[in-house]
Amino acid sequence: MNKIRIGILGYGNVGKGVETVVQTANDIELSYIFTRRDPEKIHIASPATVCSIKEIEKYEDRVDVLILCGGSATDLPVQGPMYARRFNTVDSFDTHAKIQSYFKEVDKACNEGGKVSMISTGWDPGLFSLNRVLFEAILPNGRTNTFWGRGVSQGHSEAIRRINGVKDAVEYTIPNEKVVCRVREGSTEKIESTEKHIRECFVVAMDSADKREIEEEITNMPHYFSGYNTVVHFITEEELVRDHSAMPHGGFVFRTGSTGGGYEDSMEFRLSLENNPEFTASVLVACARAVYKLSREGVVGAKTILDIPIAYLIDQTQEEILKNML
Amino acid sequence: MNKIRIGILGYGNVGKGVETVVQTANDIELSYIFTRRDPEKIHIASPATVCSIKEIEKYEDRVDVLILCGGSATDLPVQGPMYARRFNTVDSFDTHAKIQSYFKEVDKACNEGGKVSMISTGWDPGLFSLNRVLFEAILPNGRTNTFWGRGVSQGHSEAIRRINGVKDAVEYTIPNEKVVCRVREGSTEKIESTEKHIRECFVVAMDSADKREIEEEITNMPHYFSGYNTVVHFITEEELVRDHSAMPHGGFVFRTGSTGGGYEDSMEFRLSLENNPEFTASVLVACARAVYKLSREGVVGAKTILDIPIAYLIDQTQEEILKNML
Repeated sequence: MNKIRIGILGYGNVGKGVETVVQTANDIELSYIFTRRDPEKIHIASPATVCSIKEIEKYEDRVDVLILCGGSATDLPVQGPMYARRFNTVDSFDTHAKIQSYFKEVDKACNEGGKVSMISTGWDPGLFSLNRVLFEAILPNGRTNTFWGRGVSQGHSEAIRRINGVKDAVEYTIPNEKVVCRVREGSTEKIESTEKHIRECFVVAMDSADKREIEEEITNMPHYFSGYNTVVHFITEEELVRDHSAMPHGGFVFRTGSTGGGYEDSMEFRLSLENNPEFTASVLVACARAVYKLSREGVVGAKTILDIPIAYLIDQTQEEILKNML
Repeated sequence: MNKIRIGILGYGNVGKGVETVVQTANDIELSYIFTRRDPEKIHIASPATVCSIKEIEKYEDRVDVLILCGGSATDLPVQGPMYARRFNTVDSFDTHAKIQSYFKEVDKACNEGGKVSMISTGWDPGLFSLNRVLFEAILPNGRTNTFWGRGVSQGHSEAIRRINGVKDAVEYTIPNEKVVCRVREGSTEKIESTEKHIRECFVVAMDSADKREIEEEITNMPHYFSGYNTVVHFITEEELVRDHSAMPHGGFVFRTGSTGGGYEDSMEFRLSLENNPEFTASVLVACARAVYKLSREGVVGAKTILDIPIAYLIDQTQEEILKNML
């Protein structure tokens, strides 16, 4: 059987993760890495070919699925609809408030080009979304809570780095154990994210900076830190590199609900990850396999992980699944 | 919108659970309960109509999905293929070794009648199967372990009840905490079910019986208890009714695996259930909703929960899911 030919667009943390993950899959090969940079200057860890994004259209027939590894802020809103017209794609678009409109745009592009795209996959949105729907479908009378962490939030770290006088920073999102206990004990009250999580920040300040001012600016930053229990530590650049270079993450989705007869049940889905971008890449690669299978069936349009058979994610036949997995 | 009209075949624990669960769903109504017994003698807890199974063919056009609530030992092997020709069906066939051949028979019947059936759903097989596939698809290099319990195993309880001198019995399957710890710490060794679980039995002996003999017969029973750490308690009938009439269950699927770059991750799906048959019924009802949606699309054939979009399980539109759940 021919291997599924993958292209990567964007060679950052997630792109490098996809490159690494693909090498462990028997049914998939990495064919091309597309970059906005000068291809000559990119040194990659695999035998794939590096190409300029300007020439990507030449490769339409040589890539089965293009994995878009750019960011949700500026890359994907443009790239998603642009490339879904010419390639089957997978992406991890995660701006929750804009997913509906992004879905529509990608769906339109897919229909124009006869392609299929899976949007907003990874672990959240992605696997966590899948479980939120599964849990609520089975226990409609109840409450779902999602907790994130302990893990590094790139968005929050970046927000701190933009503050005047900050040289570098890493932020950890940490579930508030007291709230976790309440939820595990069956509480179905609505709990705000600000109460569910603690934000711990490790900040390297410039020599000239006023640390008290920086701390105040962090803890009062709207949307990101305001309202949260936020802890700020000032450390040296050496300490930051030594102790905070890893990218762990994880979290869990938990639902408590009652069945019709009044029995209390709970359902939980939990992830503990040593390296967030590489796990996200693992999900993207499995989803690329599913997109390939859908495209072979002639399916066209935008999909999420909720719209596809989960069996399509794995490199096994239905016979094997019925025999080994059920 | 018209409600989905459900029929129940078999009014035991699971059938009664379906009856209860359906009453909490806005988009589903229970139309008929079919029974082998005299319909006049069945007293039900809902406004549905009780009919004899002998007349079931008259109701082909009045039932959108028939939920088969019989047992896997003798009921479903006959009923599954028989009724899949005339109705869209859902069942919880759980004889793992026979699922492949059962699937083929039901699939053949569906194709002859132009119907769609979901087989072998519930929580295991069912939700646990879904997660085993999801986990292995994303972390192909690793080990999945399923632990069951703490919960009542009907099969094991029944096996004890068949022993001479036993009046009644309840068996609990309990995860071995030492093994759970090893697995949570990242062990990827293969562990047998006998090592993963403890079997605790509460037995009411007849006055004339030799308790030592009963205990020996239990602990040496092939397949069921032999090889397990089995604990037997003799109690009175009153104690059994008072302390062991509930039907709790649960368990978890756990995978430890490494991504391409050698990072260790873990994924876990956990259930804790106060009443096993009613939770199983909750899964069957959500699956009946999915089967209805598939049938409206013209899908024909046997399916498992791995073959369908998870979005079909919930009573929400795609717009709502994109907005609220992703």
